[in-house]
Amino acid sequence: MIRVTVWNEFLHEKEDAAVKKIYPDGIHQAIARFLNQQPDFQVTTATLEQPEQGLSAPLLAQTDVLIWWGHKAHDKVRDAVVDRVHQRVLEGMGLIALHSAHYSKIFRKLMGTNCSLKWREAGEKERLWNIAPGHPITAGIGEYIELPATEMYGERFDIPTPDSLIFISWFKGGEVFRSGCCWERGHGRVFYFRPGHETHPIFHNSEIQQVLTNAVRWAATGVNIPDICPNVEPLELID
Amino acid sequence: MIRVTVWNEFLHEKEDAAVKKIYPDGIHQAIARFLNQQPDFQVTTATLEQPEQGLSAPLLAQTDVLIWWGHKAHDKVRDAVVDRVHQRVLEGMGLIALHSAHYSKIFRKLMGTNCSLKWREAGEKERLWNIAPGHPITAGIGEYIELPATEMYGERFDIPTPDSLIFISWFKGGEVFRSGCCWERGHGRVFYFRPGHETHPIFHNSEIQQVLTNAVRWAATGVNIPDICPNVEPLELID
Amino acid sequence: MIRVTVWNEFLHEKEDAAVKKIYPDGIHQAIARFLNQQPDFQVTTATLEQPEQGLSAPLLAQTDVLIWWGHKAHDKVRDAVVDRVHQRVLEGMGLIALHSAHYSKIFRKLMGTNCSLKWREAGEKERLWNIAPGHPITAGIGEYIELPATEMYGERFDIPTPDSLIFISWFKGGEVFRSGCCWERGHGRVFYFRPGHETHPIFHNSEIQQVLTNAVRWAATGVNIPDICPNVEPLELID
Amino acid sequence: MIRVTVWNEFLHEKEDAAVKKIYPDGIHQAIARFLNQQPDFQVTTATLEQPEQGLSAPLLAQTDVLIWWGHKAHDKVRDAVVDRVHQRVLEGMGLIALHSAHYSKIFRKLMGTNCSLKWREAGEKERLWNIAPGHPITAGIGEYIELPATEMYGERFDIPTPDSLIFISWFKGGEVFRSGCCWERGHGRVFYFRPGHETHPIFHNSEIQQVLTNAVRWAATGVNIPDICPNVEPLELID
Repeated sequence: MIRVTVWNEFLHEKEDAAVKKIYPDGIHQAIARFLNQQPDFQVTTATLEQPEQGLSAPLLAQTDVLIWWGHKAHDKVRDAVVDRVHQRVLEGMGLIALHSAHYSKIFRKLMGTNCSLKWREAGEKERLWNIAPGHPITAGIGEYIELPATEMYGERFDIPTPDSLIFISWFKGGEVFRSGCCWERGHGRVFYFRPGHETHPIFHNSEIQQVLTNAVRWAATGVNIPDICPNVEPLELID
Repeated sequence: MIRVTVWNEFLHEKEDAAVKKIYPDGIHQAIARFLNQQPDFQVTTATLEQPEQGLSAPLLAQTDVLIWWGHKAHDKVRDAVVDRVHQRVLEGMGLIALHSAHYSKIFRKLMGTNCSLKWREAGEKERLWNIAPGHPITAGIGEYIELPATEMYGERFDIPTPDSLIFISWFKGGEVFRSGCCWERGHGRVFYFRPGHETHPIFHNSEIQQVLTNAVRWAATGVNIPDICPNVEPLELID
Repeated sequence: MIRVTVWNEFLHEKEDAAVKKIYPDGIHQAIARFLNQQPDFQVTTATLEQPEQGLSAPLLAQTDVLIWWGHKAHDKVRDAVVDRVHQRVLEGMGLIALHSAHYSKIFRKLMGTNCSLKWREAGEKERLWNIAPGHPITAGIGEYIELPATEMYGERFDIPTPDSLIFISWFKGGEVFRSGCCWERGHGRVFYFRPGHETHPIFHNSEIQQVLTNAVRWAATGVNIPDICPNVEPLELID
Repeated sequence: MIRVTVWNEFLHEKEDAAVKKIYPDGIHQAIARFLNQQPDFQVTTATLEQPEQGLSAPLLAQTDVLIWWGHKAHDKVRDAVVDRVHQRVLEGMGLIALHSAHYSKIFRKLMGTNCSLKWREAGEKERLWNIAPGHPITAGIGEYIELPATEMYGERFDIPTPDSLIFISWFKGGEVFRSGCCWERGHGRVFYFRPGHETHPIFHNSEIQQVLTNAVRWAATGVNIPDICPNVEPLELID
């Protein structure tokens, strides 16, 4: 059983009628719904305005993979909450950062870089090329995924070189982007996945759902290794 | 001309007679002295107890490579100073983190991990194996460097996989360690180099001096690229 | 079901009484025996002196993970057989190269480098440090594995930087070695594992058996993607 | 002084009038001409139909960086010549593989993979995005390079994950490609650069010339380390 927590800042859907129409119960519920179809997933949701910003220590201790959607309220997430999530990733919890989560505190803290990029909201076509067809995250995905209308993110994306580069996006307007990237940090696995703007029905797309389902399985390491920095005795004679 | 700033917390040398005997003017001055023998290096020193903790914005703006030695006062370095150094690295400034700087705020912020390790102060023998004899950092270095007496650092070192692994240490007491590691972060280059405990005359060793001199040249990228996250117009017709 | 083929040149065991005593049925049978205890593994063995050097196209087509032990007869393996194995790895078959297989034709072909190293047969102690305790290959393994008497392999090991470095060995005689290394090549996964000299009972060690069992699961990608280089039509209007 | 050898199979330019019009003296001479403007470069050319296929051992021993253009005669390059070049790269010689050299014997041998890709000759627009503006290979290059008409190469490009990814191409027809990739192999550095089809005047483009000039400097390691696999004495007491 893989325990997944889907965290969403859950503000756009309450404030913007167009977004609410696409995600009436919030992006988190849309994601939880398709993940829940996996018999071996146990899915919880959490949002910014809940107590402890939805991310209590007991919940995180029971989470194998955390999915993160945030956009306009990155600064509202308290540093203490970010530190708690950060330690859990380093202990072995998976983290899947979606779309505008490139600028979340937790993603930037794990990367150590600015995570800046180019952007444009013009509803243009995106084609995500599958660079790693043998990788577990692309199981069941063909040569590419086409999205008819998306927000554009363009290079240079200020990230450390990914351990594995899974998708590269082509945009109609002329840009490219490293749209699916894997890193290991501590004992945990991190996947950044670009699609997911709130004004487009990205999370209703079955191929996007397949990628996220695969990513949960990939990010679930099954380990939980606390940090130590021990003073140790020698294993061999020193003199 | 490569502009180098050698930063040292400079506390042990003032408080501990044994350390003062090895480094009467401080570790920073010992390092500055041998770097200054390079005609194309312009070397400045800076210490924790100076105004702005020695790291003012103007000085950082004029620094191509920053060398960092810290140990007992990591927590005293203010977050604002760390953020300033961090941004300069992402813009292209090199950072060389020495020995106990594995636990400095700036190194941990760049890595995104705990940077913990095993340790032992027993004055044992260390042999740093040169894993990358073609790399600029090992120019002039043979198969290995031997240090007759050092503090031990042992694996697992909680760091992201280095872009290049330069040295692996063998310790008499039975441990190993990734002792020379390179990463790129933003537009800057980071080198971690393990040797350098304050109670051993490590920075008087000519091979260690050669490595640090090489590392300064490697870390000096010559670029200074400010961070941006622009909203851009399309380069091609979208419709 | 994971289909494993254990290939062994199977010469030392027939020619050298000391080796035969340790592995009366050959190294391949010793390995097959403990792998066969996994209910989801289906294990076949193959040896150099069989027809088609034990590696027919039909067998390879039915192999998910190939384990390779060779030493004194690397040159006897025909290039056509090597090419066949190579294509299967690029299609998605896993390859686990053991000990002296660092110098096998297939491993060198996948690496693109000389794969040379230092060596010494002195029966000294080796300690393999677990650098990646969260990796599937080290599941169930503690901080290190100790082998009381082994052949020594020392750096510099002439390999491309591993995608993941799993074990670093410490040797009593003063050397270190990257003893467990992972790479992706094409759609396949490659694991090199250092221990396994024929004059020591390495494959009877339960921790070594655990690592190899784990490595088989890790290397089984489940994909089989033939190579193509197609001339394609545009997906968008060009003019 | 960096000694550069520009190797070209030099067949298209002799057989095809359209190509000859663009490169009357051959692609190698066009490349040698702009490289020769660097006062610290010493440039030699070599072609397939010369004695020893242009690549004698003495010439290679005097070459710091080899540039390779080949297309229709990859199979004509003798394995002994390929092996000679391969060893020199592993000893520290740089190799810059251009365009259709993705399928050359030497590039495939260094990569260990098929190096296959998608392709289309339709003279469409290409935009190479500069993913690594702080890297020496992109010095003087802006956010992207535009080529008004090129042959298309599309993903998936069957290569090992590059150590550094420098350029990603956008094609008008809808594809993307990792167009500038760096690897280390042995002690040598390898750069693959996609542009350069013989029917387009790519090597007359000043930005392409800048990239190649930069790449030569980057690939010149200055080292020449022969391969060894020594039997060594212990450095420490074993018993």
